Amino acid sequence: MKSFASDNYAGVLPEVMIALQLANEQHAISYGADEITIRTKKLFGELFEAEVEVLFVFNGTGANVFSISAATQSFHSVLCADTSHIYTDESSAPETLTGCRFIPVATNQKGQLEPQTIARHIIRKGDIHFAQPRLLSITQSTEYGTVYSLSQLQEISQLAHKHDLYVHMDGSRFFNAVTSLNCSIKEMSTDLGLDILSLGGTKMGLMYGEAVVIFNKKLTENILFKQKQSMQLASKTRFIAAQFEALLSNNLWKKTANHANDMARLLSIKLSQFKQITITKPVEANAVFAIFPLAWISFLQQKFPFYVWNVETNEVRLMCAWDTTSKDVEDFIVTIQALSNRQVQ
Amino acid sequence: MKSFASDNYAGVLPEVMIALQLANEQHAISYGADEITIRTKKLFGELFEAEVEVLFVFNGTGANVFSISAATQSFHSVLCADTSHIYTDESSAPETLTGCRFIPVATNQKGQLEPQTIARHIIRKGDIHFAQPRLLSITQSTEYGTVYSLSQLQEISQLAHKHDLYVHMDGSRFFNAVTSLNCSIKEMSTDLGLDILSLGGTKMGLMYGEAVVIFNKKLTENILFKQKQSMQLASKTRFIAAQFEALLSNNLWKKTANHANDMARLLSIKLSQFKQITITKPVEANAVFAIFPLAWISFLQQKFPFYVWNVETNEVRLMCAWDTTSKDVEDFIVTIQALSNRQVQ
Amino acid sequence: MKSFASDNYAGVLPEVMIALQLANEQHAISYGADEITIRTKKLFGELFEAEVEVLFVFNGTGANVFSISAATQSFHSVLCADTSHIYTDESSAPETLTGCRFIPVATNQKGQLEPQTIARHIIRKGDIHFAQPRLLSITQSTEYGTVYSLSQLQEISQLAHKHDLYVHMDGSRFFNAVTSLNCSIKEMSTDLGLDILSLGGTKMGLMYGEAVVIFNKKLTENILFKQKQSMQLASKTRFIAAQFEALLSNNLWKKTANHANDMARLLSIKLSQFKQITITKPVEANAVFAIFPLAWISFLQQKFPFYVWNVETNEVRLMCAWDTTSKDVEDFIVTIQALSNRQVQ
Amino acid sequence: MKSFASDNYAGVLPEVMIALQLANEQHAISYGADEITIRTKKLFGELFEAEVEVLFVFNGTGANVFSISAATQSFHSVLCADTSHIYTDESSAPETLTGCRFIPVATNQKGQLEPQTIARHIIRKGDIHFAQPRLLSITQSTEYGTVYSLSQLQEISQLAHKHDLYVHMDGSRFFNAVTSLNCSIKEMSTDLGLDILSLGGTKMGLMYGEAVVIFNKKLTENILFKQKQSMQLASKTRFIAAQFEALLSNNLWKKTANHANDMARLLSIKLSQFKQITITKPVEANAVFAIFPLAWISFLQQKFPFYVWNVETNEVRLMCAWDTTSKDVEDFIVTIQALSNRQVQ
Repeated sequence: MKSFASDNYAGVLPEVMIALQLANEQHAISYGADEITIRTKKLFGELFEAEVEVLFVFNGTGANVFSISAATQSFHSVLCADTSHIYTDESSAPETLTGCRFIPVATNQKGQLEPQTIARHIIRKGDIHFAQPRLLSITQSTEYGTVYSLSQLQEISQLAHKHDLYVHMDGSRFFNAVTSLNCSIKEMSTDLGLDILSLGGTKMGLMYGEAVVIFNKKLTENILFKQKQSMQLASKTRFIAAQFEALLSNNLWKKTANHANDMARLLSIKLSQFKQITITKPVEANAVFAIFPLAWISFLQQKFPFYVWNVETNEVRLMCAWDTTSKDVEDFIVTIQALSNRQVQ
Repeated sequence: MKSFASDNYAGVLPEVMIALQLANEQHAISYGADEITIRTKKLFGELFEAEVEVLFVFNGTGANVFSISAATQSFHSVLCADTSHIYTDESSAPETLTGCRFIPVATNQKGQLEPQTIARHIIRKGDIHFAQPRLLSITQSTEYGTVYSLSQLQEISQLAHKHDLYVHMDGSRFFNAVTSLNCSIKEMSTDLGLDILSLGGTKMGLMYGEAVVIFNKKLTENILFKQKQSMQLASKTRFIAAQFEALLSNNLWKKTANHANDMARLLSIKLSQFKQITITKPVEANAVFAIFPLAWISFLQQKFPFYVWNVETNEVRLMCAWDTTSKDVEDFIVTIQALSNRQVQ
Repeated sequence: MKSFASDNYAGVLPEVMIALQLANEQHAISYGADEITIRTKKLFGELFEAEVEVLFVFNGTGANVFSISAATQSFHSVLCADTSHIYTDESSAPETLTGCRFIPVATNQKGQLEPQTIARHIIRKGDIHFAQPRLLSITQSTEYGTVYSLSQLQEISQLAHKHDLYVHMDGSRFFNAVTSLNCSIKEMSTDLGLDILSLGGTKMGLMYGEAVVIFNKKLTENILFKQKQSMQLASKTRFIAAQFEALLSNNLWKKTANHANDMARLLSIKLSQFKQITITKPVEANAVFAIFPLAWISFLQQKFPFYVWNVETNEVRLMCAWDTTSKDVEDFIVTIQALSNRQVQ
Repeated sequence: MKSFASDNYAGVLPEVMIALQLANEQHAISYGADEITIRTKKLFGELFEAEVEVLFVFNGTGANVFSISAATQSFHSVLCADTSHIYTDESSAPETLTGCRFIPVATNQKGQLEPQTIARHIIRKGDIHFAQPRLLSITQSTEYGTVYSLSQLQEISQLAHKHDLYVHMDGSRFFNAVTSLNCSIKEMSTDLGLDILSLGGTKMGLMYGEAVVIFNKKLTENILFKQKQSMQLASKTRFIAAQFEALLSNNLWKKTANHANDMARLLSIKLSQFKQITITKPVEANAVFAIFPLAWISFLQQKFPFYVWNVETNEVRLMCAWDTTSKDVEDFIVTIQALSNRQVQ
């Protein structure tokens, strides 16, 4: 099967698979004190061009919840996009582990937070009756496959910091955004004054594993205790680290993200040629959102699985992954062409 | 490095590594709806000879905490050995996620719970002021490398059920115990009336991944919600399932566990020849506990890392893994022999 | 001081004070097994005309959080008005104790939930990635001093039950609503199919104490354990029960609520005579919301404390309590008249 | 009924009842900003002879859990006596609200913690796998009605502080201990370097209400947020404060505690005259523990309710309260005498 359902339907990058095999030698100290882990953490410092603390964790929900637990106390609230993964796709894990309130902030058409909307939720500071806003979580690239510009991020980050909120980035598709903006990793993290980042690996072609990258030293004090407590500490950490080492070496992250983004762009261009189809969001990373004729959807899904995002409007989401090929796109388009022809007749 | 520090210092079984490569084909549905996962779950049913529900999770702490969360409400208490991993090595993750109290029950010299000791803690049922005992967690093989007999387990399980407690087994080294007892998997689980089992994979030669096996259908009602909420749901579940499929096929689990147990037995026999060394626990699985001369310890640790279990008595723990060889044992013994000789002079 | 700040600025009804003195005789069994408590619980059954379970608790936050904890598991979500006390004035206590997500539902101009708005949030049932909607909390009378009609409540309750959600009523001003609608207690609770009710005492003239009234027997199974666990079990329960016994006897609740409502109505009528003042919400219970000239506000607050509800629009909230007198209203109006005259000149 | 069951079976001191009536005048600012509360807090400062922060809460479980939540993070553990209220009588409220582990420390015959026993549990500091010991909770007077000497408390407090643990005192019967030692309040709190104290009111003759007294300024930073979040903030706080004002004025606390202690001493002297009865604990505060003939117990309980502490040994607990009279003691003894006579015949 090849699908446009999610970048987590894809398998593992060949380079990552090789790294896993190479890491499988002899014994290594458990829980992150091994050489591969230490080596890979240094690599993070080089790429982010900062003295970051790096923790390797299992999955995206774990990365987000653990990150936020590191920056909050239980009487705090967290502002996040009403479309964000942490608000819509992580069950109540955020509340159960942190005890905090999670406040949904309305997003614009692009699924992006805007400063004035955020500002309306930074209220009642010091009022003991109100869960105190303490952290803003922003998703880059967004759930809609759009990408905040660096200046947007700067403005939002400054707003948050001005009001003494930490800034967390859910970067499950961080690299897709960096390559989309054609900026450096540093520009989209360190330079923004990010406090903490959930850096996605799984959707970028890892077998499993995400990294929590901490920029703000205040947040590192008890970080290892909190990682253990949040059940996100791997005994054989080396195997997560080794995957990230492969991804961060030789610009593999850049090639991989670029490729997925390119495939999405190609797909959107091809789709936009059909008058029955409306592209609904700017295609800025590796997702295409489009309205399809209802009659086409289930037929297409059988051959190329994908998700209907909005059952009322027949908006579908098509994700491209590291292994999506232009042939996959072509096959999909050919099938649509056939549907389109049939309809015309 | 080759060590006796922990079975989680070891790498990945070759058969498991191959399975991971074979699983890395095309796309697969995420979150456990893929073919490999479905296929592997069936395999569990065959081995446990019961209609079990199986959930694949990331690590041991996750397996234990998630298991217990599935069988408790927050006003309950959990009885566990004062030596158990859940009580001594999982931070406060059990309390933070479940809200329950964890009550340490004293163990005997073998690190095993005894019925009369357990019974002393099954008290005040119905008393609203007291966190209500609802689950007994038992570790097989134990933290001391000893193995409960089937009749011991039967007696404990019956005691717990008689008082309406669920029985959870922390089986991070379940297979080592099965092979030690030379019984069937079914005899050490289904036949005991186990309610829920944390089945270890990582320490048996997996890269990562444990399985939660549920025997009691009452516990399955909301199990998928609870798995997601406990941050233990892998998007690319197939890669955990594939490892277990390899482990459970062709008796790989049996060969692997047998081998590790054999190495521990060999090690203990060799060690017992030194009059300066005292073996402190029966060697029934893949661990050897022994008192070493203080002067030897740090010297030995430099070549063959291992943990000092009790700094007051100089008791050390030596773990054998799937990849411990008789040559490793021999090398260790040779070094000890040299120390012994030197001392004698 | 006499104020319009909140009905919790007022003291204790004389009848309640006498009841407290009468309850202060000899010894009584603690934790709710005393005679007064048993007697008062029966009284609840008579007034609600149903076999209700009644638990006496300390305060409003406790009543709401405990109620909700009794009807949810930690992977659930709770729908509540974005203006509700539980969402805006109870810190993160709801999340911290229950682990659930609390989802704010937009309200109309009257601060009321509407069925179609609620319906938009009853989504993704069975989807493990989404905190499952399990309870709807509705506030009667609302934070804006408006009152849902019985038919509105019926419609909302049916909608919730149709989708398998429990219905919780935050009735911190329940009696004000009942008298406003001139209906029976039964009609506004039992007949609606309410599952659980936080019944306010403190704002009705008790010294302290609220009652949690449970209509749905499914929710009573572990209710006493949950009350204890939520730190809302009073050792000398008789003193809360005695206050409720006084309130529920001789129609004291009705006279008291009616009086506060009347004072609010009188206040609003008098205020509406000033062209500089705009009444912003229908006055249906014991609150008046109005826009005042900015220049008047702090001057008035010094003599008659009250809260500015919206600093942008100068909307203020004026609460009447059981002890607000028509003379208090008159004094306030006279002061306003003086301000008005001065301005005119 | 008059009983020896618990000091929370007793009612309210007359002076406290009067204070409640006097506090019931006009309106007062809610949530602790009223004059009585402010005035009473000053009184605490005078009695403790320190700049303490004081928070008024509803009940003992609330006071303990809130206190501990103020001094811990969720990856911490709390050491407490295995006989302590927080470990045996507060359900799992401590774990559910704080997320911490609560570790039972064995007590001596007097129900008291000993330094060397505590020390054995202050282990593995810095080890991320182990819930980090952060707070020691000590109960004065103890659950067995015994009283630590000041030098015992000094030693324990120094031990805890040496290892960077906060010291919490569960003082639900604090005043009984102070009068027993005939020391000043300051000597048994401020001078020990206590960090935080749960000061009991209910068992001392209040209707409801306890005080959390904070000595360590580090713990006050977010204390009001945590009080609200733990559902222990009363809207009409003045009514708790007023009760404490009465208790702390005119040495009422001292007279009351002294009286209850005296009654216990009288009771124990009288009981010790019966050869069938064995006093099992030193009578140092307001409790008497004694072994009664089994045949007597239920007969006596019908007239004078009390609890059997240990069903195996027939040890009973007899509590004296502020309102226990020497006539009550005499009546009890007369009944026992009758039983004794009958038995002899």
